[in-house]
Amino acid sequence: VGTGRLETFSDGVFAIAITLLILEIRPPEDFSHLARGLLDLWPSYAAYAASFLLIGGVWVNHHAMFRRIARADRWLLLLNLLLLLDVAFLPFPTAVLAEALREGEGEVVACVLYGATLTIGGVFFNSLWAYAASHGGRLLRPEVAPAAARGVGRRFVVGPTAYAIATLLAFASPWASLAVFVALTLFYLVEGAEDRRGRPAG
Amino acid sequence: VGTGRLETFSDGVFAIAITLLILEIRPPEDFSHLARGLLDLWPSYAAYAASFLLIGGVWVNHHAMFRRIARADRWLLLLNLLLLLDVAFLPFPTAVLAEALREGEGEVVACVLYGATLTIGGVFFNSLWAYAASHGGRLLRPEVAPAAARGVGRRFVVGPTAYAIATLLAFASPWASLAVFVALTLFYLVEGAEDRRGRPAG
Amino acid sequence: VGTGRLETFSDGVFAIAITLLILEIRPPEDFSHLARGLLDLWPSYAAYAASFLLIGGVWVNHHAMFRRIARADRWLLLLNLLLLLDVAFLPFPTAVLAEALREGEGEVVACVLYGATLTIGGVFFNSLWAYAASHGGRLLRPEVAPAAARGVGRRFVVGPTAYAIATLLAFASPWASLAVFVALTLFYLVEGAEDRRGRPAG
Amino acid sequence: VGTGRLETFSDGVFAIAITLLILEIRPPEDFSHLARGLLDLWPSYAAYAASFLLIGGVWVNHHAMFRRIARADRWLLLLNLLLLLDVAFLPFPTAVLAEALREGEGEVVACVLYGATLTIGGVFFNSLWAYAASHGGRLLRPEVAPAAARGVGRRFVVGPTAYAIATLLAFASPWASLAVFVALTLFYLVEGAEDRRGRPAG
Repeated sequence: VGTGRLETFSDGVFAIAITLLILEIRPPEDFSHLARGLLDLWPSYAAYAASFLLIGGVWVNHHAMFRRIARADRWLLLLNLLLLLDVAFLPFPTAVLAEALREGEGEVVACVLYGATLTIGGVFFNSLWAYAASHGGRLLRPEVAPAAARGVGRRFVVGPTAYAIATLLAFASPWASLAVFVALTLFYLVEGAEDRRGRPAG
Repeated sequence: VGTGRLETFSDGVFAIAITLLILEIRPPEDFSHLARGLLDLWPSYAAYAASFLLIGGVWVNHHAMFRRIARADRWLLLLNLLLLLDVAFLPFPTAVLAEALREGEGEVVACVLYGATLTIGGVFFNSLWAYAASHGGRLLRPEVAPAAARGVGRRFVVGPTAYAIATLLAFASPWASLAVFVALTLFYLVEGAEDRRGRPAG
Repeated sequence: VGTGRLETFSDGVFAIAITLLILEIRPPEDFSHLARGLLDLWPSYAAYAASFLLIGGVWVNHHAMFRRIARADRWLLLLNLLLLLDVAFLPFPTAVLAEALREGEGEVVACVLYGATLTIGGVFFNSLWAYAASHGGRLLRPEVAPAAARGVGRRFVVGPTAYAIATLLAFASPWASLAVFVALTLFYLVEGAEDRRGRPAG
Repeated sequence: VGTGRLETFSDGVFAIAITLLILEIRPPEDFSHLARGLLDLWPSYAAYAASFLLIGGVWVNHHAMFRRIARADRWLLLLNLLLLLDVAFLPFPTAVLAEALREGEGEVVACVLYGATLTIGGVFFNSLWAYAASHGGRLLRPEVAPAAARGVGRRFVVGPTAYAIATLLAFASPWASLAVFVALTLFYLVEGAEDRRGRPAG
């Protein structure tokens, strides 16, 4: 499979997963106090926005990575499928997190599930790049210099480490943990997009 | 990210969000009086059609806008993601609105939620264009004249203003508010499409 | 909007609507008699297959139509959106029909709802072609001869008429009505595909 | 319909079906013992991963097949639609299997339903290739030698046979059956991808 098809398929999964997030938000039961009921759903809105921007960030960084990859072999394909498996899983921890915050019970566990999903996704993302850049970068485009490839790898590896630390932070304070998740998401979204400025449109 | 990928991804989200709307309509409980039960669901059908045409209109106008944009930088990407976040959110207020009309309770609040979603979407849409056209239009295609860009901006800015007024109207009469939402949707759908006539197919 | 984008967007909606059909089938409640419970769901399987092939048939015929259309104006866009609105609505009557057959109640009403959705879809499909071929076929490709355009129109117009008759048949016998729906679906699926044989791949 | 459109539509259905799998996993009821509740859902996670990789494998092998097919006629289209019908059906047996394992009831029946879906999918997959390669391979690309076409057919035909045997194995032991399903899925995923190595990107 050429990377063209791989990217189109991945984009499809990103677009579907990002749009399915809304299905986890259900109208309140009691319509006689609708304003109250809608306000009580605020953790769902926050979790929706956080996961939406997170998947958006994965999409942006996935492109940044694949613009440097020339060919796909079977292991790259499998690693990419594992990354998609993690991204498509995200609506579940998002729903669990929103409900835990709403019920005021199980926040630590929900936070750990959410953080673990992000951390594992980061590990797959890094494995993908590490594999593509291995053996002298034989899957990379010729114009990607080895030093640049190592730089990209170093930049990417910070992600899962930071997500893992933020996940552990949940045991001390779920709110601190969530704040770090959101900060990391925004950082990767804007930083990943940055990389693209001034390059020819893909 | 070039605008090509950005548009394909956005189209995917529009197509998925528009098709997910149907999941909010559930078969009635009582099948011994099915005709009655199906007729009682009329607010769901109306809300489905209204939101379907609304997303269709956003799709049309999104293309009209991006045909004038040559390049995307990180902030444009982020603003576009915020617009998609709002569009993908729409199935939720649609479901709330349909249920409020069906239950005859909470119509004002449901109408305000629906209108606020449309208004915020309009604000993101305008921010997208304002940003792209800023700094002498450096992200625009060279053939877009500054005067034309300002004209487009003026045309777009009417949208969120009108949606905001229609939202406030809900406090006086939810039905008047809904009538204006539908009228605005049809206007932008046809007017956005208009713009395209006689131009080379994209 | 050029027809390229219009077709891609329509294909997306077709692919999503066809795949969402499965969400209407729910696992049985009682797992101690699972085989029995799964067999009792047969109307859901039948309705799933019928609607799946129907949307597949619309997809095939939609392409056959758009291969003859060169340009889209605002009214063509609106008519196409109305057709998509009808196709994306289909999971709902499919679920109602399956449940009516399973409960043994409301079959006539469910059949009429299903048939009405197909008939209205057929009317939009025909309106699309009639509009594209009107005014001397100004939206058609130049190589489509006026006589051929009229022939296509005559072939398409049989569809909603046949679906309307099959819908009325439900008042006499829902089963006869369903048999005709399935027969028509298979006919249009294979007949629409036929048309394409030996032509250059699109 | 040329195979280009056919492949794009099929890719869309694969991407949607693979992403919808997550909707079958629901947050636990009791948030006061959330860790326990999440762990009890392990059959859902396993079934999600197994079906995700399975659809991924179908996607990979579908491309491997269509890279050898030059043209589509109406019967090829119909056979492909039947294959998609089977793939899009998969979220249902996946949900049934997960629930049976969780409830500790109905595992044999659930396993047979799951295996039957895989087996029938394999039969459609093989019919597709058998049809394309029939009559002297008139639908194949000219560069595909008859001996190579027969080799591909032999390789593909092992699939449904193995899935059928694994399905029957469920009557002796559902767990043994599931282990074989997973092994076959991984084999076809990696083996299908293998085939692609070193070829020009598609």
